[in-house]
Amino acid sequence: MARVLTPRAEDFPRWYQDVIAKAELADNGPVRGTMVIRPAGYAIWERMQSDMDNRIKAAGAQNAYFPLFIPESYLRREAEHVEGFSPELAVVTHAGGKQLAEPVVVRPTSETVIGEFMAKWISSYRDLPLLLNQWANVVRWELRPRIFLRTSEFLWQEGHTAHSSYDDARAYARDILHNVYEDFMRQMLAIPVIVGLKTARERFAGATSTYTLEGMMGDAKALQLGTSHELGQNFAKAFDIVYSSAEGRSEHAWTTSWGVSTRMLGGLIMCHGDDNGLRVPPRIAPVQAHIMIVKEGDGVAAEAAKLRDALRGAGIRVGFDDRTDTPFGRRAVDAELKGYPVRIEVGPRDLAAGNVVIVRRVAGTKTPTPIADAVSAVTAALEEDQQALYDEALARRQSLTVDVSDVDAAIEAATTGWARVPWSAVGAEGEAKANAVGVTVRCLTRADGSVPGSEDEPDLVAYLARAY
Amino acid sequence: MARVLTPRAEDFPRWYQDVIAKAELADNGPVRGTMVIRPAGYAIWERMQSDMDNRIKAAGAQNAYFPLFIPESYLRREAEHVEGFSPELAVVTHAGGKQLAEPVVVRPTSETVIGEFMAKWISSYRDLPLLLNQWANVVRWELRPRIFLRTSEFLWQEGHTAHSSYDDARAYARDILHNVYEDFMRQMLAIPVIVGLKTARERFAGATSTYTLEGMMGDAKALQLGTSHELGQNFAKAFDIVYSSAEGRSEHAWTTSWGVSTRMLGGLIMCHGDDNGLRVPPRIAPVQAHIMIVKEGDGVAAEAAKLRDALRGAGIRVGFDDRTDTPFGRRAVDAELKGYPVRIEVGPRDLAAGNVVIVRRVAGTKTPTPIADAVSAVTAALEEDQQALYDEALARRQSLTVDVSDVDAAIEAATTGWARVPWSAVGAEGEAKANAVGVTVRCLTRADGSVPGSEDEPDLVAYLARAY
Repeated sequence: MARVLTPRAEDFPRWYQDVIAKAELADNGPVRGTMVIRPAGYAIWERMQSDMDNRIKAAGAQNAYFPLFIPESYLRREAEHVEGFSPELAVVTHAGGKQLAEPVVVRPTSETVIGEFMAKWISSYRDLPLLLNQWANVVRWELRPRIFLRTSEFLWQEGHTAHSSYDDARAYARDILHNVYEDFMRQMLAIPVIVGLKTARERFAGATSTYTLEGMMGDAKALQLGTSHELGQNFAKAFDIVYSSAEGRSEHAWTTSWGVSTRMLGGLIMCHGDDNGLRVPPRIAPVQAHIMIVKEGDGVAAEAAKLRDALRGAGIRVGFDDRTDTPFGRRAVDAELKGYPVRIEVGPRDLAAGNVVIVRRVAGTKTPTPIADAVSAVTAALEEDQQALYDEALARRQSLTVDVSDVDAAIEAATTGWARVPWSAVGAEGEAKANAVGVTVRCLTRADGSVPGSEDEPDLVAYLARAY
Repeated sequence: MARVLTPRAEDFPRWYQDVIAKAELADNGPVRGTMVIRPAGYAIWERMQSDMDNRIKAAGAQNAYFPLFIPESYLRREAEHVEGFSPELAVVTHAGGKQLAEPVVVRPTSETVIGEFMAKWISSYRDLPLLLNQWANVVRWELRPRIFLRTSEFLWQEGHTAHSSYDDARAYARDILHNVYEDFMRQMLAIPVIVGLKTARERFAGATSTYTLEGMMGDAKALQLGTSHELGQNFAKAFDIVYSSAEGRSEHAWTTSWGVSTRMLGGLIMCHGDDNGLRVPPRIAPVQAHIMIVKEGDGVAAEAAKLRDALRGAGIRVGFDDRTDTPFGRRAVDAELKGYPVRIEVGPRDLAAGNVVIVRRVAGTKTPTPIADAVSAVTAALEEDQQALYDEALARRQSLTVDVSDVDAAIEAATTGWARVPWSAVGAEGEAKANAVGVTVRCLTRADGSVPGSEDEPDLVAYLARAY
């Protein structure tokens, strides 16, 4: 059989591109760095969105929509913010057949424009907290684009909130970090993320603290899967987000922002994919059980349709392939590539014995199963394989993370995995040294794995790795 | 009591702006013509999206996402298309700190870029029909912007399909028109749209036929609420969308496109709103029943919470207002403004008699109702008032549409309503005459109300009106 994908061990980036192309997840767009998300990829994104949106609403935030176009002058109001984003901006200079008096930037993120409206909408402490979220496209011009990971345009949600105190803002940024993002990534994406604090060098432009969720990919590199920022009063001061307190004093609000993006699709592929293609965790999979008619025969189509209805009745998302004019082998390879957690082969021979064959993508097992047991067998397989993917990713992260005691050893360890090293042995100087050879401090945690309040806490642990 | 809104009869456009501001639906964005959709407005849009998305998927289309940025050269490939859109384009000339070699346009619609990818993805008749949809923002620079109706950036869905025959493309464009759009607008938005064919003059740039859905607003003007286009082989030829037929011949595909946008929010406001504010049809309302605690008292909060849970248990979307530190009158005015279909006042006096008061937004009735009957009373009210809004809009359209026999009479009739006139008495010349005084041919229908295949059919009826 012809090789379908470049093996991961041979060339991981090439394998990644192959999976995206062969599983029909996405294509490069015509403008450099942009992407087309194809139906198979978009269906996964829709499920991510829907689950995440429920979680965000449960955390009390309301969805809204702010404009794509932002006056250039807005970006300049927060000094670090403009410095961080200027090199990545796309600028509209002409519109409606004329040169614009003031060029407008295509939003790279919406802190500035949302800050402007928070200032209009907030007057009293009764208006706080103001908890907003939007699902939108954003643009950051990329010199080295890679589909889903770094694209000039990507889709994301960006939450923006304003609070009446430092403590409340911090608590909310951390609520999103843990109860929305971390839980989603572990439970739905089956990715055992490390959650921690970014160093000053890696912080979001304009933030006072940036929290991050880092996943280990199949090549042992790190991928930042989401961030939650405390913005202090920086944007409140730049945009006059002021409220009168219960005591009647005029105070600046404390704001946060937080986001996850289509980058999670890249993380899903690179965390769980294998040499046969994608493996989609069952809870997020648009198709959980894929019924394939092996070949026509007495009652085959009718039994397959009955099984489809029974599975749907049990709340399982079902695909159905009756393209018997295409060779079965090719269709089976395609099902592997697309990563359906379970496929169910229905053919005349097994059916004569009252069976269908259940093929599990993660374990690779093929089990003849009495039709009457198929729904419960599939249900159990989906539960188990969600866990199996998580366990496999966790085992990899644990086996490829090594404890070292200085920067040089951490840099060395980062050639094959992640290094865990006392932050006191690294510091800003060690961080610069690591960066010079392509290794970054992914995040800082406390020794017990919890998230520190600042990088000045004693006894912090730094994770160093190569990253996407 | 101070006047909350400008009365419609005094100044309808001003009333419209007032409702949008006071019901906190939207704001003008900082860049001319853009808008901020606030949570109360966005929640309605989300429900529109969700219901429409289900219908689109039921019609067999799959969601995907195509880039915001389109090379300028793509637009030029279809002659009518570029001519139609050029004056409205926003153009990015600088990105990543440099001038771009080829400027890129911000998509005004995606026929061109999707055409390019259809050409890549389609090779055989087996790949057809290809049925795609995307939810996205688009940009058309507006000289006379008005929130929701004509904004420089708006949100929409755009469907794009390719077919192997003229008949199949036509059937699909009409399936979307009737079974997705018309049914949604009548059943969910309670807007009794007239569905018809656009004249050559009003057709989409690049289409061979454009179908439209037109609603009558509270000021008797027409609003185009959605369109579905047959594009013939125009885009297939411009973008080489070619397939090999079952007989092995190379053929150009036949394509369609169709869209509805945040403009529907404007239609909802202007079709159903009254001098007290918004009236949201129950099926689309994010809050269907709004519980208001009149004032604190023995067991009031507990009863209100119990009622909330009972209503939610019955599948009703419930709002809850216990801000008893704000005067009740002000809160009641606010509830009217926001157009909740039903509000339920819970206060100590009624509660002592075992009652709550059910206030219906459409009828204006206030009915003391035993708590035990509240859920069934609310359920019935929601059903009835969905229908009542539709009936009211239909009665207005019928009473303000007059049959006339020539263009001059139609122009006259369009000062106060819609004119229905034989198309043979109008023609291209009559249409130009009407346009010159701000009256347009909204659409053509057959005498029995069905949608004609071409404007050359005999005995067609033209609807003439002033329009948004």
